[in-house]
Amino acid sequence: MAKMKAAVFIEPGRIMLEEKPIPVIGPLDALIRITTTTICGTDVHILKGEYPVARGLTVGHEPVGIIEKLGSAVTGFTEGQRVIAGAITPSGYSNACLCGSGAQDGPDSKHGFKVAGGWKFGNTIDGCQAEYLRVPDAMANLSAIPDHLTDEQVLMCPDIMSTGFSGAERGNIKIGDTVVVFALGPIGLSAVAGARLMGASTIIGVDAIPERLTIARSLGADHVINFKTHDPIQEIMRLTDGRGADVAIEALGTQQTFESSLRVLRPGGTVSSLGVYSSDLRLPLDAFGAGLGDFTIVSTLCPGGKERMRRLMDTVASGRADLRSLVTHRFKLDDIEQAYELFANQRDGVMKVAITP
Amino acid sequence: MAKMKAAVFIEPGRIMLEEKPIPVIGPLDALIRITTTTICGTDVHILKGEYPVARGLTVGHEPVGIIEKLGSAVTGFTEGQRVIAGAITPSGYSNACLCGSGAQDGPDSKHGFKVAGGWKFGNTIDGCQAEYLRVPDAMANLSAIPDHLTDEQVLMCPDIMSTGFSGAERGNIKIGDTVVVFALGPIGLSAVAGARLMGASTIIGVDAIPERLTIARSLGADHVINFKTHDPIQEIMRLTDGRGADVAIEALGTQQTFESSLRVLRPGGTVSSLGVYSSDLRLPLDAFGAGLGDFTIVSTLCPGGKERMRRLMDTVASGRADLRSLVTHRFKLDDIEQAYELFANQRDGVMKVAITP
Amino acid sequence: MAKMKAAVFIEPGRIMLEEKPIPVIGPLDALIRITTTTICGTDVHILKGEYPVARGLTVGHEPVGIIEKLGSAVTGFTEGQRVIAGAITPSGYSNACLCGSGAQDGPDSKHGFKVAGGWKFGNTIDGCQAEYLRVPDAMANLSAIPDHLTDEQVLMCPDIMSTGFSGAERGNIKIGDTVVVFALGPIGLSAVAGARLMGASTIIGVDAIPERLTIARSLGADHVINFKTHDPIQEIMRLTDGRGADVAIEALGTQQTFESSLRVLRPGGTVSSLGVYSSDLRLPLDAFGAGLGDFTIVSTLCPGGKERMRRLMDTVASGRADLRSLVTHRFKLDDIEQAYELFANQRDGVMKVAITP
Amino acid sequence: MAKMKAAVFIEPGRIMLEEKPIPVIGPLDALIRITTTTICGTDVHILKGEYPVARGLTVGHEPVGIIEKLGSAVTGFTEGQRVIAGAITPSGYSNACLCGSGAQDGPDSKHGFKVAGGWKFGNTIDGCQAEYLRVPDAMANLSAIPDHLTDEQVLMCPDIMSTGFSGAERGNIKIGDTVVVFALGPIGLSAVAGARLMGASTIIGVDAIPERLTIARSLGADHVINFKTHDPIQEIMRLTDGRGADVAIEALGTQQTFESSLRVLRPGGTVSSLGVYSSDLRLPLDAFGAGLGDFTIVSTLCPGGKERMRRLMDTVASGRADLRSLVTHRFKLDDIEQAYELFANQRDGVMKVAITP
Repeated sequence: MAKMKAAVFIEPGRIMLEEKPIPVIGPLDALIRITTTTICGTDVHILKGEYPVARGLTVGHEPVGIIEKLGSAVTGFTEGQRVIAGAITPSGYSNACLCGSGAQDGPDSKHGFKVAGGWKFGNTIDGCQAEYLRVPDAMANLSAIPDHLTDEQVLMCPDIMSTGFSGAERGNIKIGDTVVVFALGPIGLSAVAGARLMGASTIIGVDAIPERLTIARSLGADHVINFKTHDPIQEIMRLTDGRGADVAIEALGTQQTFESSLRVLRPGGTVSSLGVYSSDLRLPLDAFGAGLGDFTIVSTLCPGGKERMRRLMDTVASGRADLRSLVTHRFKLDDIEQAYELFANQRDGVMKVAITP
Repeated sequence: MAKMKAAVFIEPGRIMLEEKPIPVIGPLDALIRITTTTICGTDVHILKGEYPVARGLTVGHEPVGIIEKLGSAVTGFTEGQRVIAGAITPSGYSNACLCGSGAQDGPDSKHGFKVAGGWKFGNTIDGCQAEYLRVPDAMANLSAIPDHLTDEQVLMCPDIMSTGFSGAERGNIKIGDTVVVFALGPIGLSAVAGARLMGASTIIGVDAIPERLTIARSLGADHVINFKTHDPIQEIMRLTDGRGADVAIEALGTQQTFESSLRVLRPGGTVSSLGVYSSDLRLPLDAFGAGLGDFTIVSTLCPGGKERMRRLMDTVASGRADLRSLVTHRFKLDDIEQAYELFANQRDGVMKVAITP
Repeated sequence: MAKMKAAVFIEPGRIMLEEKPIPVIGPLDALIRITTTTICGTDVHILKGEYPVARGLTVGHEPVGIIEKLGSAVTGFTEGQRVIAGAITPSGYSNACLCGSGAQDGPDSKHGFKVAGGWKFGNTIDGCQAEYLRVPDAMANLSAIPDHLTDEQVLMCPDIMSTGFSGAERGNIKIGDTVVVFALGPIGLSAVAGARLMGASTIIGVDAIPERLTIARSLGADHVINFKTHDPIQEIMRLTDGRGADVAIEALGTQQTFESSLRVLRPGGTVSSLGVYSSDLRLPLDAFGAGLGDFTIVSTLCPGGKERMRRLMDTVASGRADLRSLVTHRFKLDDIEQAYELFANQRDGVMKVAITP
Repeated sequence: MAKMKAAVFIEPGRIMLEEKPIPVIGPLDALIRITTTTICGTDVHILKGEYPVARGLTVGHEPVGIIEKLGSAVTGFTEGQRVIAGAITPSGYSNACLCGSGAQDGPDSKHGFKVAGGWKFGNTIDGCQAEYLRVPDAMANLSAIPDHLTDEQVLMCPDIMSTGFSGAERGNIKIGDTVVVFALGPIGLSAVAGARLMGASTIIGVDAIPERLTIARSLGADHVINFKTHDPIQEIMRLTDGRGADVAIEALGTQQTFESSLRVLRPGGTVSSLGVYSSDLRLPLDAFGAGLGDFTIVSTLCPGGKERMRRLMDTVASGRADLRSLVTHRFKLDDIEQAYELFANQRDGVMKVAITP
């Protein structure tokens, strides 16, 4: 049985490069030879043991590659095509998919923590930080890369761009809205770009790292606030003449960013939450207007599926959104443990790394 | 200056019937002679001092009456017409109104607790538990009662029906949805009727008072759960084959009902919150799916304005919704203090009282 | 090769019962043994040659049956299960499906008349007026029938109910709306039931056949207009105090019903068109408000897929909608030519026929 | 009685500058001293007698000016403020306004051609091509101009920008959509800018005037098609790989642009119609997919009201949209007849003219 290299979760604190068999595919699957992938903040949660996955699982959920082999029932694609697949791989045929909740794909029940059934790569099945990847339900999930786009140009599509844009989309941003984005890591910066794309007339970014504030400006933020030097709530109220924001996007997953999102909102406004939380959240009575504020709070997992990927790559192709500046470091797959070391510790101004087998 | 009787907030624990001048009206106002009104759970919050209003304020926000006098700039109505006005009286011309947040009417800013600016009667201006009522922005707020409808038939329109239905509307209920309503007081029962009106195929009501469970069934609940004898979450999961509810409507304003609403939801589902809360809320990590569940949480204040009232009265007129069974007791305005005593203590199976001057 | 009986399109004017091989299934398919089916108005268009299909094609697209055999890649179902499939069978994995247009499934292009790619049964592949049916993309399309429901109770789900309800859904009916339905055949009657389900407070049905007007009343119409004896536009304007309808549903496919729908609309209202047209339509300048009326016109093909079917059957199971009264006649498959003769000529008050092999 | 100069409709073919009394205002009105205004294509329809208005009416509906006097019941504004008002002036308090159809404001009935009741200036009341303008329902319609914006920067907000953007908004454009705009006059160019603002990834503009194609590119069009040299339908199908457009915006008001919009649409797509038509429209059977295409057709009148104007000016202020290049010529009010002569005959590459009293 042919072997390949793969980054594998061993135990909390350890992800290692190991040899594993190249995946065997079923009739609905495809086998992809990975050409570029990257590490996500969620992978760091996995590394730290904060988000539990099975020992021995290959991690990673942002694949760019070439179709090596197609399952016997798969039509519409050809071997050798350059493709991406979303971080989330909806089947297309589940009840969840058919009622528009593809990211919540899976058996139609929810026992305890079992949401997010559409997130399979590096969560419930082997992921893409490896030489090869099995893509389930390939017909719903493979999306051909336009010829003139490089791997790095589309590397943010499977997760960062899809998630960040969804923060703007689920916030239902309208032309002329004032939008605040709390936390300007890769997801938050992508949310800034998404808010800009959807017609927000005023975008305010909040973070404490000057480089991030600078990138936020380049992606569409009209104002940036360093929360170490200024109180963001006061600043936002000042910038909006006391009116507050129409939409606040939370892009980190903490009580502080969540609560601040609610506090800067105008009555009738929307908090769009993108972060992965690791503890209970509190909705303070006054911030929540005692239930009388006509507020909307939405949480969103990354939208997937081939049509989503096609649209995001179109957006890249037409120059509407360019997130290449997020790729700050490049590694060979052989060196992925160093990449994790750099990324998990946020050294050297790292935003995203490109990993090539 | 002519005098009238009015129920007035004196101090926490005391609402008394007093003599006050009949209101003077401005050019955009109308003076209404009240023929029927009622007491709301919110009035009890005011009575208890949990929701602060100015001493001396006339309470009450559910008016049925007759136009006594129109302001000099008011057109489109005639003195002597039978009318209602919503509990919430949007101006029609504020920025909040013009962007669709009429219940959040008022100066476009939010300082601390200052949401719900559209709620004026018995909150920021004198209310309708009196012989006469000044209605601000009369052209946006007066709605003529169809001749063949009695006062009691339309008495639930200004608040109970508008709020309860909005729970269903903001939950965005679709044909075939499974909907749970937690707490079956007047608002929750009206939410059951609203869920039925919007096409939910399975409606589950939760409360502990048998009479309320019975009324819930008559208004459209397919299943009712007495939470004293059955665990509602387990029961709902059983009734839905483990799938969970598409929409859960919270109609009380407590941690328990809010949290249960979240826990019975399918991934991708919606909590529609109607209650007035009196303390911080907690979003447990697992119930919130760590932010990965594609959940939507909406809070809604009662929609107002004359078009809303016209539509609700049409719904009554065509027999689509009949909430008369909620009126369990009747009092003269002179006896309103007894009415409060009964209602605040939930004696004698009271649901709603009709008060007639 | 085993044989079966099937109703086959021979040439314009002739559909005949013939012997054909039982379908062979691929890995994603299922073979269904039909237990009940019916004839649709669209089948009559096919019979008359107005809607062209290939000679030799088995017609029919409303199947109720039992799973005989599952394709090798199909999971989640078992042989022997009672199921229905929608008239429209989206794949689940096409770009059209993944952007929410499942009924327009198929290669993502449109050449001339090639819309409606999701309609396959009796259109582009063999249909269900036969002893056996091949269902493509079975995992997206089979939906288990609840045990306590009979074949006839769910017989309207695959097309009539799904299409009729979609007229209400795409019209975006809101609580309190006034809705008119033009033409009260099976689809129009189902649209009346759908409008009622979505909370319309006033429903007006228009037709000329007294029996249909009577059924319309029983399904939720508040007013019915016989267009042979009354001018529907004048009547509707009278019934609405000159305001017009919020939504008008066209359920026949003629210039007259389409144009009348537009003429009874309030400014800002919606025409929801369900009919299959056979000639160009005209939008009269005045009826269209010269383009200044903020009108919305939507056309809708029947929504399909297993989640849609599950929801419709839930609606039947809870007693929210009961269209059994539409089944006026019953035939054996052996007698289907007589059934066509009766149905195509609209003899004997026929609404829908039940066909059992 | 003080006099002013005003451009007045005399008879078909003649608009003349005359002396008229300065308007007298009522309690809800404001008197505006006009500082800049412009001529609209609709004014040319009026000039030619194609759209009938009363003889003696002052024309024009795009006002920029200074508050001269406020009605006795008006609050929230001060005399001397620089303001604009939308071309459409919803009252805020009508049933139409309160159900979200502000542009269709007015008595809730529709007799023949009486849509567009919210369009009052230069239609049913005196307009703004004059030294002074009476603004009805001033509290709903006056919007203060940010200090740093010039008259010409906001001159497109009352109509061109609001209408053009609404073409994109009502088309419900999503991130990644392909959008076509047919006809690139001021409205169509503004629709291009609106499509860009809402996240369309591919925008295709169609016209025959090279200067307009050039401006379209500068406002966000990725491709432009000169319909004199290329067949737009073929070109669009080629550019979209046969997929068709998600949204097609019609911005002229002719059979050809309307029909082409429908023909380039993907199944499930939307035609957003902005033009003012002067004859019946035809929906060809094949282009309309015989009613099976899940198409949406929306017509939209310009949205008005002070919140809309505030948002548009915010969009200008943040540099998101800059339509100043549309102002190609400038005239004194005294010379308005020459301005009409130039504009009506589309001489000298005119797009929009600025008129200053």
